[in-house]
Amino acid sequence: MQIGGYKGTIYPINPREEKILGLPVYRSVLDVPNRIDLAIVTVRAEQVPPAMRECIQKGIKGAVLITAGFAETGSRGQALQEEVTGIARQGGLRFVGPNCMGIYSAAANLNLSLPGEVPRGSIGFVSQSGTFGGIFARAVASRGCGLSSFISAGNQADLDVADYLEYLANDPETKVVVMYIEGLRDGKKLFNVGRKIAGQKPVIIYKAGKNQSIARAAMSHTASVAGEDRVFDAMCRQAGFIRVDELLSLLDAAAILTRQPLPGGHRIGILGTGGLCVVLADTCVSMGMEVPELKEEHIKFIISDLEFPPHAPTPRNPVDFAGANRTALQEAGVLNKMAQLDYIDGLICNTPITWADSSKSSVAEQEKLLTQAAELITAIPQKLGKPVVTVDLSDIAFTNELIVKAMEAAGIPTYNTPEAAARAMAILVKYAEIKRRFPNASHPQLR
Amino acid sequence: MQIGGYKGTIYPINPREEKILGLPVYRSVLDVPNRIDLAIVTVRAEQVPPAMRECIQKGIKGAVLITAGFAETGSRGQALQEEVTGIARQGGLRFVGPNCMGIYSAAANLNLSLPGEVPRGSIGFVSQSGTFGGIFARAVASRGCGLSSFISAGNQADLDVADYLEYLANDPETKVVVMYIEGLRDGKKLFNVGRKIAGQKPVIIYKAGKNQSIARAAMSHTASVAGEDRVFDAMCRQAGFIRVDELLSLLDAAAILTRQPLPGGHRIGILGTGGLCVVLADTCVSMGMEVPELKEEHIKFIISDLEFPPHAPTPRNPVDFAGANRTALQEAGVLNKMAQLDYIDGLICNTPITWADSSKSSVAEQEKLLTQAAELITAIPQKLGKPVVTVDLSDIAFTNELIVKAMEAAGIPTYNTPEAAARAMAILVKYAEIKRRFPNASHPQLR
Repeated sequence: MQIGGYKGTIYPINPREEKILGLPVYRSVLDVPNRIDLAIVTVRAEQVPPAMRECIQKGIKGAVLITAGFAETGSRGQALQEEVTGIARQGGLRFVGPNCMGIYSAAANLNLSLPGEVPRGSIGFVSQSGTFGGIFARAVASRGCGLSSFISAGNQADLDVADYLEYLANDPETKVVVMYIEGLRDGKKLFNVGRKIAGQKPVIIYKAGKNQSIARAAMSHTASVAGEDRVFDAMCRQAGFIRVDELLSLLDAAAILTRQPLPGGHRIGILGTGGLCVVLADTCVSMGMEVPELKEEHIKFIISDLEFPPHAPTPRNPVDFAGANRTALQEAGVLNKMAQLDYIDGLICNTPITWADSSKSSVAEQEKLLTQAAELITAIPQKLGKPVVTVDLSDIAFTNELIVKAMEAAGIPTYNTPEAAARAMAILVKYAEIKRRFPNASHPQLR
Repeated sequence: MQIGGYKGTIYPINPREEKILGLPVYRSVLDVPNRIDLAIVTVRAEQVPPAMRECIQKGIKGAVLITAGFAETGSRGQALQEEVTGIARQGGLRFVGPNCMGIYSAAANLNLSLPGEVPRGSIGFVSQSGTFGGIFARAVASRGCGLSSFISAGNQADLDVADYLEYLANDPETKVVVMYIEGLRDGKKLFNVGRKIAGQKPVIIYKAGKNQSIARAAMSHTASVAGEDRVFDAMCRQAGFIRVDELLSLLDAAAILTRQPLPGGHRIGILGTGGLCVVLADTCVSMGMEVPELKEEHIKFIISDLEFPPHAPTPRNPVDFAGANRTALQEAGVLNKMAQLDYIDGLICNTPITWADSSKSSVAEQEKLLTQAAELITAIPQKLGKPVVTVDLSDIAFTNELIVKAMEAAGIPTYNTPEAAARAMAILVKYAEIKRRFPNASHPQLR
C-alpha cells in the first residue's frame, strides 16, 4: 500500500509489534481511534473468525480475506469458510476472498496485490488466480493499455464474480471488463448481471475447467466446481459475454476494444502481399467474417495509383500488392479508398512498407509523403470510423518509424501472426453484434 | 547467388549486356561453353517457351521458372503454362514454378530466394508463397533452428509438393518437412508419397483455402484450386501428416520436433503455480492429452523436498508450488522426480524460479546449487528421454540466467502462453503416435 502511493491512513494490527514500516501498530482493530473503511485480513485461517467478529464490532463494512486454508483444502476448511461467511452475513460485513491475493484500485490508489508499478488504464480485471494479476498488469502494458481495477476473487465465499462485474459495469474508470473464472458459485446471478449490463461495455471471459476429468485442479486451487462447459458457453452467448479460448486473448481482446472503433458489420477488406493475403482471407472467413469481392466499378478507383505488371491478376479483395510498383503513400491510399466503400466494415493489412525512392526526392519531401501516408491510414479509424489492424510477420523493420508512431497514436495495432490480426478484428465484429443485440443499454457506450 | 556464397559457376544470359556483377554475359545458353546443371528463368512469360527450348537443346535437365504471368492470370496464362510444360516434358527437363520465388539449398550453398543471411539447419520448407520463405527464414532463427532447404513451389506446373516432399524425405540434411499449401495439383500423389515416407520424419502442413467462398484468393495467387477441406484433412490423418491450424505453428511444431525427444505416450506432468496449473491442465486435456493423478505412494517421493504450509492441498498433478517454501534446486528436483514416474510421458512447467536465499549461502554456493538444478532439468530430455517444455508468462526475468542457458542448450523451449506450451507438447505426442502407427518405416528415424 505504501509503495502503491495509498493516500489514506493505514493501521497495522498485530499483537506483538510496536511499529511496522514506520506506522504505529494496534493490538486489535477495536483499539484504532478512527473509523475503518476496509479490513485486510492475513491472519491464519483459524484466527479469521475472531478477527472478523472484531471487525464487525468496530463497524467495518468491508474486508479482503487474503488468508488461505479454507474450502480449497477440504471439508474442514469448508466448514471454517462457512463459519466466517455466517459471521460476516450476520454482522453486515461484505468480503473479498478468502484464499485470494487482494485487490487493486487505480482510482483509490490502493494496491494490495500487484508487484511493481501498475499501468493505469481502463481495463477492469476480475480473476480467480491472484498470480495472473501481476502477470496481466505487465501484459496489458505491453499492449499499450492499463488497469483500472484488479480483484483476486479467491474462493468467492461472499462477494463473487457477478458482484464484481456489476461493480465494474458501473465504474466510470472501467471501459472493458475481463474475467478469469475457474468456477461459478451462482451461475444464474452472473447471467442476470450480464443481461442487465449487456451492451454497456464489453465483458470478456476466459473460463478454465472445461474438462471434468481434470476438475481436481480448479478444486484444489480455489475450491471451484467447474460445471458443465456447454451450459457456461450458452450462458455467455445469451448474456452477451465474449468468451475467449486462450488466456492471453483476454488482454488482446480488451486492448483492441479500447483502441479501435466498432465495425458496422463483418465485411473485411484485406491488403497485403502473396500468401499472407490468402491466409488472412481464409482465416477471416473461418472466423465468421466475410471478405466481399470488390465491385467491378470500384476496382479502378481502388488501385488506380498502383502500377501492376501487365500480367498481374486484377485484385478483387484481397488486394494483393505483389508485383506492383508502389510507395507507402500509394499503399496507404489504397487502404483509405477501400475503407470508403460502404460494403467494407473493417480493414486488415500488411504494415505499410516504405518503398519511397530516395533517388527521386529529398529527405524533406519523403517525410512529407510519409506524413501524408500516415494521415491516410489513421483517418480510417478516426474519420471514417472503421477499424484497422495490421500484420507484420517480418522482424525486419521495413516500416517507416513515422508511420509506426502515427499508427500507435491512432491505436492501430500490429500483430505478428495473421491469425492474431484476424482474431482482433473478429472480437470487434463480435462485440458490435452484441451491442446491436442489446440496443437498449442505458449507460454511456463504448464507441 | 553471389551473396549466398554459391561455389559453382554462374553464367548470366542476356541479349544486351556484356557484364553483370562482374560476370561475363552470354547471349544464349547455347553459347555457354560448359555443361549447365540448372537454369534459372526470369524472362517475360511469352519468352519462356523459346528459352525452355534452348535449355533443352543445351541438355539442361532442371530449371527454376521464377517468371509469373501463367495460370494465375487466367485462361491465356493457363494455355501458356501448358505449352511450357509440354515443351519441358518432351525435352526431359523438370522444373520448379512458374510464378515462384526460387529455391534455397544449404547443402549446395545455393540461394535464389531468401533475403539476408539464412540460418542453416534441419528444416526443409516447401511453400506456395515465396514471401513466406524470407519471413520463415527469420522466424526459424528466432526459434533456435534453421533451414536445410526452401522451395517456392509456385503454380506447380511440373514438379509439385509431392515431388518436393519425396525429395526432402530422402535428404539427409532435412529432419523435419514443413509445407505451406494453397492447393494440390494431384492429391493422390501427395497421399502416396506420404504413406511411403510416413514415420521417417515429421511432415507438418498448413493448408490455406479452407473456405470455398474465398477460393479466388488462392486462385489469383498461385492458380490453386483449394479442394474440399474435409478430404484434405482426412488425407493428412491417413498419410501421417501433422496438420496445423495457424501459419506460424508450422515453425513452432518443427522447432519442438527437432529439439525434444518424443514421449512414450500422452500422459503429462504439470508443475507450476496457481491459475497457470489449472489452465495448463485443462488445455492439455482439451488437446487430447491426459494429466494423470499422482499415485498416493508417489506423492511423498515427489514433494518431499518442499515445505508446504500446513493447510495446503496435497498436489496430485498438477503440482501447484504456490505457498511452498522452495529453491530453484527443489523445483528442479520435483520436476526430475515426476519425470521418473512410468505413467508420466512428458512435462510442462513454469520456468523454474530462483528463490535461492542469499542470506544462507555464498554466491559460489548458489551457483553450485543452480548448476545442480539445471542438471536435474536437462537430464529429463537427455537422460530420461522425456520431453520438457516451459511457460513463462511474466516479462520479469525471475529465472536465473544459468538455468535459462542450460535449458537452451538442452533444447527446452519457453513459451509465453500456456496454450503454446501445451500445443508444443501435443505436437510431440501426435508425432510419436504417427511413428507408432507406421512402425515399418525403413529409414533412419528422428529420435
